[in-house]
Amino acid sequence: MIRTMAVVGTGLIGTSVGLAVSRHGVMVHLFDQDETAVRTAAALGAGVAGAPAGPVDLAVIAVPPSRVGEVLAEQQLRGLARAYTDVASVKSQPARDVLRTISDPVSFVGGHPLAGRERSGPLAARADLFEDRSWVLTPTEATSQAALNRVLELVALCGAIPVMMESQAHDAAVALTSHAPHVVAGLMAARLQTGPEEAFRLAGQGLRDVTRIAAGDPLLWGDILQSNAAAVAGVLRALHEDLSAMLTALDDLAAAEPVRERHSMATIVDLLRRGNAGLARIRGRHSGEPASQVRLRVAVADRPGELALLLGRLRELGVCPDDVTTSLAEGSGALFAEFGVPAVRAEPLRRTLSEHGWHAERAVRAPDLREEVLSKP
Amino acid sequence: MIRTMAVVGTGLIGTSVGLAVSRHGVMVHLFDQDETAVRTAAALGAGVAGAPAGPVDLAVIAVPPSRVGEVLAEQQLRGLARAYTDVASVKSQPARDVLRTISDPVSFVGGHPLAGRERSGPLAARADLFEDRSWVLTPTEATSQAALNRVLELVALCGAIPVMMESQAHDAAVALTSHAPHVVAGLMAARLQTGPEEAFRLAGQGLRDVTRIAAGDPLLWGDILQSNAAAVAGVLRALHEDLSAMLTALDDLAAAEPVRERHSMATIVDLLRRGNAGLARIRGRHSGEPASQVRLRVAVADRPGELALLLGRLRELGVCPDDVTTSLAEGSGALFAEFGVPAVRAEPLRRTLSEHGWHAERAVRAPDLREEVLSKP
Repeated sequence: MIRTMAVVGTGLIGTSVGLAVSRHGVMVHLFDQDETAVRTAAALGAGVAGAPAGPVDLAVIAVPPSRVGEVLAEQQLRGLARAYTDVASVKSQPARDVLRTISDPVSFVGGHPLAGRERSGPLAARADLFEDRSWVLTPTEATSQAALNRVLELVALCGAIPVMMESQAHDAAVALTSHAPHVVAGLMAARLQTGPEEAFRLAGQGLRDVTRIAAGDPLLWGDILQSNAAAVAGVLRALHEDLSAMLTALDDLAAAEPVRERHSMATIVDLLRRGNAGLARIRGRHSGEPASQVRLRVAVADRPGELALLLGRLRELGVCPDDVTTSLAEGSGALFAEFGVPAVRAEPLRRTLSEHGWHAERAVRAPDLREEVLSKP
Repeated sequence: MIRTMAVVGTGLIGTSVGLAVSRHGVMVHLFDQDETAVRTAAALGAGVAGAPAGPVDLAVIAVPPSRVGEVLAEQQLRGLARAYTDVASVKSQPARDVLRTISDPVSFVGGHPLAGRERSGPLAARADLFEDRSWVLTPTEATSQAALNRVLELVALCGAIPVMMESQAHDAAVALTSHAPHVVAGLMAARLQTGPEEAFRLAGQGLRDVTRIAAGDPLLWGDILQSNAAAVAGVLRALHEDLSAMLTALDDLAAAEPVRERHSMATIVDLLRRGNAGLARIRGRHSGEPASQVRLRVAVADRPGELALLLGRLRELGVCPDDVTTSLAEGSGALFAEFGVPAVRAEPLRRTLSEHGWHAERAVRAPDLREEVLSKP
């Protein structure tokens, strides 16, 4: 069991680790080159400033990726802890540094908590920063089971979910899901330096969302991008090619060249469609597959506001109105609302709606029949 | 006063307009090529399907930018309304179309409510979609005051804030604040089509935010981008150049060319810094200038968690902890927390903190003195 810990580097992540484990009674020793940062972390309750009397159970090296190898070697040399981990958002380069320096790879497990804020430094720290977040661990063949278990306990104390990965797979994944998006947000935000002040009266939530993460510390992010340069460049090179195609199409449309209009529009719509498709991969990933879904169809009476009443009732009954579609019956022109529900809920829901005066039935369009057939074992 | 209206095009925006004005007792007539859409809008309570007996007070043409001119001409010919507006997110191209067709420019005012959702269609509509949002109006010299006043009344009924602009200034502004960000989000989202499934376990809120607006309808957005192609291309061309510079720097770092490392890092950090600076232009724009700010400095006792207690108390007293910084006194090494407050609040806050055992005083560092001098009339 972890009773004592050291945190080397009391920035956002290091201080948050200190706050999180201190809640569980772990004695934490805090280090940082910056005396203000370490005193601030201590005053926040993340631990005590300064060195422990003997080796602690686990040391967290919370410094930028390029410094992990060097700091780890230094701390192992002085015998700071029995096991070590880091929190850098790049894993291959630090792992190579560890092997190249005098570090001992047996007691070290690379780690990366998938949590952060746009603000940095100890004052941005929060004890609950890691709760329910993924925390990647990259043990190697050299890693001892004892060290791995210490770090798994740290992840549990922080309320995070451990995810074991190879460092290279991790770095390719974060290049795509974190580092390239950071660059893209930064490049878009940089464009906002241009433009008259009045333009920003038209800035909405969309722009704020696209650019939000661009507020990160440029020096820290420079270090991250350097440590994962090849993987990030791979993602951005493909994006650069798509952007070139988009620009050519927009230039042709701006020049109003009728002969190329159809082709240019096809290029643009295709790129936007690929965006839709990519987005689907990170949407509702935790909702699981609708293993056995049934579509219900409810007749909507021909009175203004009748559909709004039905949607309100469905919301109360736990059906997300975003999943509702409408259709007109051929011939009669009657309006129907349709939505999918888990098969086990279909009949109770149908009865409840019926009690409230809505006639509901299973939708019998061909695709729904097919869905039902497919969902059988 | 508007008593009757028509909405031509019952998608997200048209239906939301119908819902918003129906709350105020306006009689709304709904039209759409798509019979399901118009029946759905009516069933939601946005109005009644079909044509009015005589001309209505105001018609809203809620169709994609490229179709505004043609639909307006058609409706003016049949005498649908006494005044007309549109809601397209591009203004110059539709205005040119209006002048080129047989449309009457006197009764028409171009409009663009700055509101939207990733979802489209009448089922995504909301009566409060426009509340407290900007709604750009682009009257020309030809526009009658009567028509302008009708549209201003519509904006008021929807709870939005009217902003008068020239169409070209509007289009340049939305190219920067909406259309280019949409493309950027789409291109990043398109990258997510690649990558193994396990990579998306590492996807966090940052990626979701950067790509969220990429969920928009590709056909509608294709139309928008075509109608504003030159302005959007201008923004994206500059971004393309920055991306090229970023790629060259990353390639050099990946190749570990020591002779160019310093230059490459400088390029990357400079681009990220420009992102920080651009972001500052859309941050806290409504908070106003701190006309007369005083910085208070509070000594933090040397006990673990003491700063956390102070931050909690400050939050209760209305000071945002995000504005707090810490510093160490030279010599004694005592820790201080510093934050800015409006001058009128400084003394009461100082007394309140003192009653709770914290010694607070005005910070007297040179920059703060300067701030106080500058803020004098």
